[in-house]
Amino acid sequence: MEFMDRNFLLDTECASLLYHKYAEHMPIIDYHCHIPVEEIANDVRFRSITELWLGADHYKWRMMRSNGIPEELITGKGSDYDRFFAFACSLERAIGNPLYHWSHLELQRYFGINEPLTAENARDIYNRCNEVLTRPDMTARNLIRKSNVRILCTTDDPCDDLHFHKQLADDASFEVQVLPAFRPDNFLDIEKETFASNIERLGRVCDWAMFSLSDLKDCLTERINYFAFRGCKTADHGLPFVMYTPCDDETAGVIFRKKMDGEEITREEAMAYRTNLLLYLAKEYHRVGFVMQLHYGVKRDNNTFMFDKIGVNTGFDCIDNHTPIAPLTEFMNALATSDQLPKTILYSLNPIDNTAIDSVIGCFQDSSCIGKIQHGSAWWFNDNKQGMLDQLTSLANLSVLGNFIGMLTDSRSFLSYTRHEYFRRIVCQFLGHLVSAGEYPANMAFLGAIVEDICYNNCLRYFEFKPAK
Amino acid sequence: MEFMDRNFLLDTECASLLYHKYAEHMPIIDYHCHIPVEEIANDVRFRSITELWLGADHYKWRMMRSNGIPEELITGKGSDYDRFFAFACSLERAIGNPLYHWSHLELQRYFGINEPLTAENARDIYNRCNEVLTRPDMTARNLIRKSNVRILCTTDDPCDDLHFHKQLADDASFEVQVLPAFRPDNFLDIEKETFASNIERLGRVCDWAMFSLSDLKDCLTERINYFAFRGCKTADHGLPFVMYTPCDDETAGVIFRKKMDGEEITREEAMAYRTNLLLYLAKEYHRVGFVMQLHYGVKRDNNTFMFDKIGVNTGFDCIDNHTPIAPLTEFMNALATSDQLPKTILYSLNPIDNTAIDSVIGCFQDSSCIGKIQHGSAWWFNDNKQGMLDQLTSLANLSVLGNFIGMLTDSRSFLSYTRHEYFRRIVCQFLGHLVSAGEYPANMAFLGAIVEDICYNNCLRYFEFKPAK
Amino acid sequence: MEFMDRNFLLDTECASLLYHKYAEHMPIIDYHCHIPVEEIANDVRFRSITELWLGADHYKWRMMRSNGIPEELITGKGSDYDRFFAFACSLERAIGNPLYHWSHLELQRYFGINEPLTAENARDIYNRCNEVLTRPDMTARNLIRKSNVRILCTTDDPCDDLHFHKQLADDASFEVQVLPAFRPDNFLDIEKETFASNIERLGRVCDWAMFSLSDLKDCLTERINYFAFRGCKTADHGLPFVMYTPCDDETAGVIFRKKMDGEEITREEAMAYRTNLLLYLAKEYHRVGFVMQLHYGVKRDNNTFMFDKIGVNTGFDCIDNHTPIAPLTEFMNALATSDQLPKTILYSLNPIDNTAIDSVIGCFQDSSCIGKIQHGSAWWFNDNKQGMLDQLTSLANLSVLGNFIGMLTDSRSFLSYTRHEYFRRIVCQFLGHLVSAGEYPANMAFLGAIVEDICYNNCLRYFEFKPAK
Repeated sequence: MEFMDRNFLLDTECASLLYHKYAEHMPIIDYHCHIPVEEIANDVRFRSITELWLGADHYKWRMMRSNGIPEELITGKGSDYDRFFAFACSLERAIGNPLYHWSHLELQRYFGINEPLTAENARDIYNRCNEVLTRPDMTARNLIRKSNVRILCTTDDPCDDLHFHKQLADDASFEVQVLPAFRPDNFLDIEKETFASNIERLGRVCDWAMFSLSDLKDCLTERINYFAFRGCKTADHGLPFVMYTPCDDETAGVIFRKKMDGEEITREEAMAYRTNLLLYLAKEYHRVGFVMQLHYGVKRDNNTFMFDKIGVNTGFDCIDNHTPIAPLTEFMNALATSDQLPKTILYSLNPIDNTAIDSVIGCFQDSSCIGKIQHGSAWWFNDNKQGMLDQLTSLANLSVLGNFIGMLTDSRSFLSYTRHEYFRRIVCQFLGHLVSAGEYPANMAFLGAIVEDICYNNCLRYFEFKPAK
Repeated sequence: MEFMDRNFLLDTECASLLYHKYAEHMPIIDYHCHIPVEEIANDVRFRSITELWLGADHYKWRMMRSNGIPEELITGKGSDYDRFFAFACSLERAIGNPLYHWSHLELQRYFGINEPLTAENARDIYNRCNEVLTRPDMTARNLIRKSNVRILCTTDDPCDDLHFHKQLADDASFEVQVLPAFRPDNFLDIEKETFASNIERLGRVCDWAMFSLSDLKDCLTERINYFAFRGCKTADHGLPFVMYTPCDDETAGVIFRKKMDGEEITREEAMAYRTNLLLYLAKEYHRVGFVMQLHYGVKRDNNTFMFDKIGVNTGFDCIDNHTPIAPLTEFMNALATSDQLPKTILYSLNPIDNTAIDSVIGCFQDSSCIGKIQHGSAWWFNDNKQGMLDQLTSLANLSVLGNFIGMLTDSRSFLSYTRHEYFRRIVCQFLGHLVSAGEYPANMAFLGAIVEDICYNNCLRYFEFKPAK
Repeated sequence: MEFMDRNFLLDTECASLLYHKYAEHMPIIDYHCHIPVEEIANDVRFRSITELWLGADHYKWRMMRSNGIPEELITGKGSDYDRFFAFACSLERAIGNPLYHWSHLELQRYFGINEPLTAENARDIYNRCNEVLTRPDMTARNLIRKSNVRILCTTDDPCDDLHFHKQLADDASFEVQVLPAFRPDNFLDIEKETFASNIERLGRVCDWAMFSLSDLKDCLTERINYFAFRGCKTADHGLPFVMYTPCDDETAGVIFRKKMDGEEITREEAMAYRTNLLLYLAKEYHRVGFVMQLHYGVKRDNNTFMFDKIGVNTGFDCIDNHTPIAPLTEFMNALATSDQLPKTILYSLNPIDNTAIDSVIGCFQDSSCIGKIQHGSAWWFNDNKQGMLDQLTSLANLSVLGNFIGMLTDSRSFLSYTRHEYFRRIVCQFLGHLVSAGEYPANMAFLGAIVEDICYNNCLRYFEFKPAK
């Protein structure tokens, strides 16, 4: 096959047909991303392809570091072109890296550039990209529009007043729904130094004195209600692993007070506190109908030297392999026992957890929602062809693939919607292989409907989004 | 390829030849299953395809729950047709799920139905299946016969008097050997509430007062001898993981007495007790020539709400990922040191253990038996094409694939023998890929002999079955 | 494809072209092996193919045990031919085992024998091999030469005076560089009975009284300097897992003294000691420019019965699955914090660690060296097609594949250089798949350069070898 042509990743006739007839034209719901909402509200423009590509993308930064590029040309003060050139030189050697595909999909779809980026043509492509960026259709909103995004969920602090979300909802000129997502990590991460100040900040937002854990819970409930009022449909959590160290409210309250009073708390106490509060929040999500997303298996900020220099989310995180299944099931069981388990999406950063997770989700399905417990799409370090195929294979083996809610970008970039295309092509490849191997009937209409479900319909139904503004 | 035709899964000429010339006609030895022996003894008939398919199959129940089907239509009082229809609707969406293949293999082989089951044709297929079920060749015994099963091993409590096995052995009209397998989990699971009552039950069977662990061991030995007398060739164990917390007999005896006296025992004590008794049993197996099967890596009964409603083995188990290699090797070493390690088959439910297990079995092979320590066939959640290929690949890489004892159903169903066909097709696919890639010579006679060994001969030799009745 | 012909493993035109035009002719740097240097110095000859194949190869021994061969014919006193015949019979059944490919590559490349070895032709092949072995070009040095090896690193005890290395360096008649590698496991394995005697031995070598840990560190530094003087470029470590239990020098010194005084030390103390000394050594490696190789995830000597009979490295080791990521990152971070992290190659024996490791290495790359932190090539139980493809896929996904330093033999055999060929063919297969699937442009010159880099250039640059003698 030619390099990344019309049938990129579509290596059977069935896959090609499924993609081009069904998948390609479905709108996008990006139900988890890290785009700053103000950039949409302000409909920002971009100075250069360097700003778009290297402004905030730790995937690319890591890749450049692996190529021995000095930090100056990665996150430092190198000129836009020098940084772009350093990136191009690195990318060329990164055979098999998903960045190779993502970057070229972006060049093709947003810039009309179909040749491979190399050290040799870097100057030319740089110039052509920047020229395109001066066009009026290359603002934040127009990039979202031309990507056929219908709904997107940002990631928001419970303290956020969501005024940008309100502004966008009120803005008749922008037809895409931009919804908040509730991300209360700051209130669960009791080990962190910033814990007390975050609590106080929430107290100020709610105009409430934060004496006890019960106060915190009340304030979080207030914020959940407010987020729901602003159209929020989901809460998201980042956890090292899903723990279950149950304790009663009184004990959890004592741990909370110790921390607020500046005392040391043990690792065990932190887990007990976290368990107690996460159970509370999960029940609240169940009450208001939020989908609970649990992202776990991450070890963050592993390079202190670089952390001190350039801070968080700069490419120094890794997969953790302490992701025990036992507490995960006990946590879910505790909620299921009182029939308060919300719709839940599990994502482990460690791909070796795939099969175990798919065996877990099957233990908590019920008829309150089709595919109530989901195994989230291959995430972060697994967001590549092999990672996606592995997740799809395992999910298909142990669950009902037709009910999968599919892809999200998890990204800060306005160009990353091509990852939905990447995912859809891989889904079609996966299905095409099954059909061409005689493992599923070549009923294209039925398969097409399944593809449309995985691309869009399942997600719409699952989160209970209301697409028309 | 056409959907599930004659060359289903046989994607090379070599694979097709190996399957149709060698594998297809070999008899079946199903050395581990959960068929209730009385159903064979009574040569039961089946009311409907719903009874056969949904009467006791937690794989199918889980799949239906993942499709949002109400429990009423899964394990509840829904009509036979309504439940069948709900299953058909779910199956259609379960692309890539092994149930899709198993179900259609069963429709093809036992009911002569070759079209895919859909929501649309569910009524028609339901009727046709039920009509077939009225035929005299569709009783339990005839299903076993027409599946070309020569020997099958049920799973039996040490307390069982095996009268159905005796009855079948004495019944000249049924030529298939139905042998018991020794499954003493009840006497190892000291944490369970039912432990003491199980001990007492065994005491009554053996007419022996159960004062001490030594009494228990004597009674278990008596039962092992009795099982051996009834043709038993294997013992089977279900363990969370293979532990090794050695303690002397006196200490283990004290733990046993504590439990029998109604005292609490610690997790550590439970592990010590289990280690002590399992070492004892393994040596007994070595003495009488039983193959020891160790199934581990399972976390059971994760959904208390459903457990309280419908009990055990209803589809709420999952893979555990606490399956340490170190105690497994220490346990085996303790037995090997005194040359009392029985023939052993290791099965972990967690597929990520494949390579580690294959590295372990190589540490304990010896010339007392070819392939003395086996890595069991892909099990339960791994009993699918990918799971089987992964197990075969790893086993082939680290061991001698030609000595593999192959497939078992692990099933409660009289239709599940098609899983042997499924496995055999996958073995032939695997070998076909090697040959067509030039990785093994195209010596079809030699390959055919290997295939026949993996399908039947190795198993016959390994367990020391005597095929002629 | 024909069995192991010219295009063995090269299943696309692109792969074939890359291999035959670029990979095939590149010299070999074998930067980690276990060849005894004196065998090179003495330019030994081999009595028979049995000596070469079964003299010291625990891979083959394990495989034969898995085929039920008596130990007599494996490591025992069986005749050369009987042992060879037993091996041939076992190999024939080991479909899919890398030994099948390695052995036949060796027969083809060194003996000119192209037919598959079978039980039937074993006698003939045995004779032909032994005849070839009488030729003058079949000595140790000539085997190295004809394998196109340019540099090789042995594995050496810090106590070694390296006189054979010196002798080889001074020998103008042998143009291949044979360099030592520093392997100080004996001084880290404080749990072992032989610890104190090893310390004393080192003391004698350095002519120094070993009173304290500080003495030990000084002596190890002296040896590092001496090894560096003799051309050493790398240190190698075998660890159960990469621990991080930091303690100050005083505490570590007390633990050292306890052990030297014959007292028991705890597991926790052993970890603290090991952490302290390994941090010291790593900083020393950074100082002198050694590459630090960390091999972990091994559980050794699992079969006491056989250990007592035939000792270490005889085929009774296995993969351990206790290989936590957290302490590994903390260990590396401790070194990076003071900018003393040496170039490092991580190898876990457990293939399930691949993705996690590739996520870790990305956290510690910097511009001091391209690809400073490497994920080592698939090792030992993973040194097979699937294992290599898995490592390459994961590395490509998360890093820059073009900077990979590639293959090593890790072997005791003079015929094992064909494993470089095996690896190179698999690299070309991997790249060929990407290109033929349209996932990378078919720029053959650029791809060819990448292939040459992975085969040779990267390794030369990374270790800072000086190729011309």
